[in-house]
Amino acid sequence: MNQARKSVLPYRVIYGDCDPMGIMYHANYFRLAEGGRAQYCRDQGLSYRDVEAAGFAFPAVEAHIKYLRPAQFDDLIETRVWLSSRGRVRLVFNFEIVRDAQVLAAGHTVHACLGKDGRPVRLPAGFEERFPVLAQTGPTNGSA
Amino acid sequence: MNQARKSVLPYRVIYGDCDPMGIMYHANYFRLAEGGRAQYCRDQGLSYRDVEAAGFAFPAVEAHIKYLRPAQFDDLIETRVWLSSRGRVRLVFNFEIVRDAQVLAAGHTVHACLGKDGRPVRLPAGFEERFPVLAQTGPTNGSA
Amino acid sequence: MNQARKSVLPYRVIYGDCDPMGIMYHANYFRLAEGGRAQYCRDQGLSYRDVEAAGFAFPAVEAHIKYLRPAQFDDLIETRVWLSSRGRVRLVFNFEIVRDAQVLAAGHTVHACLGKDGRPVRLPAGFEERFPVLAQTGPTNGSA
Amino acid sequence: MNQARKSVLPYRVIYGDCDPMGIMYHANYFRLAEGGRAQYCRDQGLSYRDVEAAGFAFPAVEAHIKYLRPAQFDDLIETRVWLSSRGRVRLVFNFEIVRDAQVLAAGHTVHACLGKDGRPVRLPAGFEERFPVLAQTGPTNGSA
Repeated sequence: MNQARKSVLPYRVIYGDCDPMGIMYHANYFRLAEGGRAQYCRDQGLSYRDVEAAGFAFPAVEAHIKYLRPAQFDDLIETRVWLSSRGRVRLVFNFEIVRDAQVLAAGHTVHACLGKDGRPVRLPAGFEERFPVLAQTGPTNGSA
Repeated sequence: MNQARKSVLPYRVIYGDCDPMGIMYHANYFRLAEGGRAQYCRDQGLSYRDVEAAGFAFPAVEAHIKYLRPAQFDDLIETRVWLSSRGRVRLVFNFEIVRDAQVLAAGHTVHACLGKDGRPVRLPAGFEERFPVLAQTGPTNGSA
Repeated sequence: MNQARKSVLPYRVIYGDCDPMGIMYHANYFRLAEGGRAQYCRDQGLSYRDVEAAGFAFPAVEAHIKYLRPAQFDDLIETRVWLSSRGRVRLVFNFEIVRDAQVLAAGHTVHACLGKDGRPVRLPAGFEERFPVLAQTGPTNGSA
Repeated sequence: MNQARKSVLPYRVIYGDCDPMGIMYHANYFRLAEGGRAQYCRDQGLSYRDVEAAGFAFPAVEAHIKYLRPAQFDDLIETRVWLSSRGRVRLVFNFEIVRDAQVLAAGHTVHACLGKDGRPVRLPAGFEERFPVLAQTGPTNGSA
């Protein structure tokens, strides 16, 4: 796998991310994955703000995650995100949350491509080549 | 004080609201206060969605809170909100978070009245009378 | 399906739950699902606080959701939760988020049963009968 | 003011931080301030985890903020935090949220020093010298 093409966003876990077990609350990993997708956009030279300004939106239509090891307060972790599939009106992003080379959680989110009227729309040619797909081949992704 | 004119929104504290101390994370009390302000609007017969649809927005410009006793996971609490001051382009809401008649936290938020262009604007007459002020006289409010 | 055995928790969507699209941020549905699981516990006559006080914890090890229609600010919605599978050291909860009888999102979470030392442990007999399983048979659950 | 002694934590605003106005939800600035306090601890050579491991806790007892300009999705901002006052059983931290040298928000939080039994306790000598105070003298702090 071309490791270099995963987008990487470092993050320091704050107290408010964690629950009474002292570990990151399970819903918050999806916040990290979202931050990673925004980093993916920036790595392609655009902001997701540009996507919205052009009249598109990529709302999540499905999400899946496996939790392997808990992230804890003050941990320095990183989120790695890559586009694993790009259909006509659908994007699939995979992500993994990593600490010291150990995968803490891994999953994917599926997104619809919607146009100004809120209906599914094919990404314009100008966008498609800016969303490169990284085939998902490794054992580290951990998602179904 | 006319207790009946405080708007009241009950809430059950979830696990995800709480931090590693096992108590509600301090920032989340402002989420409760916001929910209480939305309840205040509904108690006046309108939704804050109506306010936005009419081209207005009331972003927070200041917030203050005192934490007296912690709310814990699974607690049934209630947020009480009232409009304590209404200026030409400014609203002040007070709130208190209560469990079993004990005030857990109390504070206030100050909001600008902005129009479509994002500039301060006087509330139209039609709105003003729908935002009744409850003078803040009691010892229970706990805010500065 | 025995509709009566689903646990139900009503909720009013607050502004802070919603993202710039004006809809509930996708990660926040898992907060609702968690609130629904706590309601499930209360419906069985215990609090999840009792589970923790007895030395057990049920951290999420997997989560899945499909988003069908967006929840919006000020919507009155409800979360329905039921235990769909109970293994020796594993619980599976299904949930659906509903507004006006329409399912907005549906999914499930898988939980490990951990003991005081953080290792998987069989639920003690006293707990097992208090966690009734509702077989998942309907078309409304929407999860994989 | 000794600018160098403010602790600084950079952060990229995620979509999930923002509300339907497209700006950071007002409660979330306190999450940033908390992250900044954790950075302050690390800058002194310890983690807040060490503080807790030593049997202490610094729960917030009061918080105040003024919102001057909104932070928006994808903005690269930074949180600057400094200890502005240290009493026997009380700490006051000031913070400012900055983007491109402009202060977006500023405020302070007051914290109790609690010991193992949850009662106010004086910080042990070993800790006090590790929490240096930066007198609050500048016009940039923006808080009351």
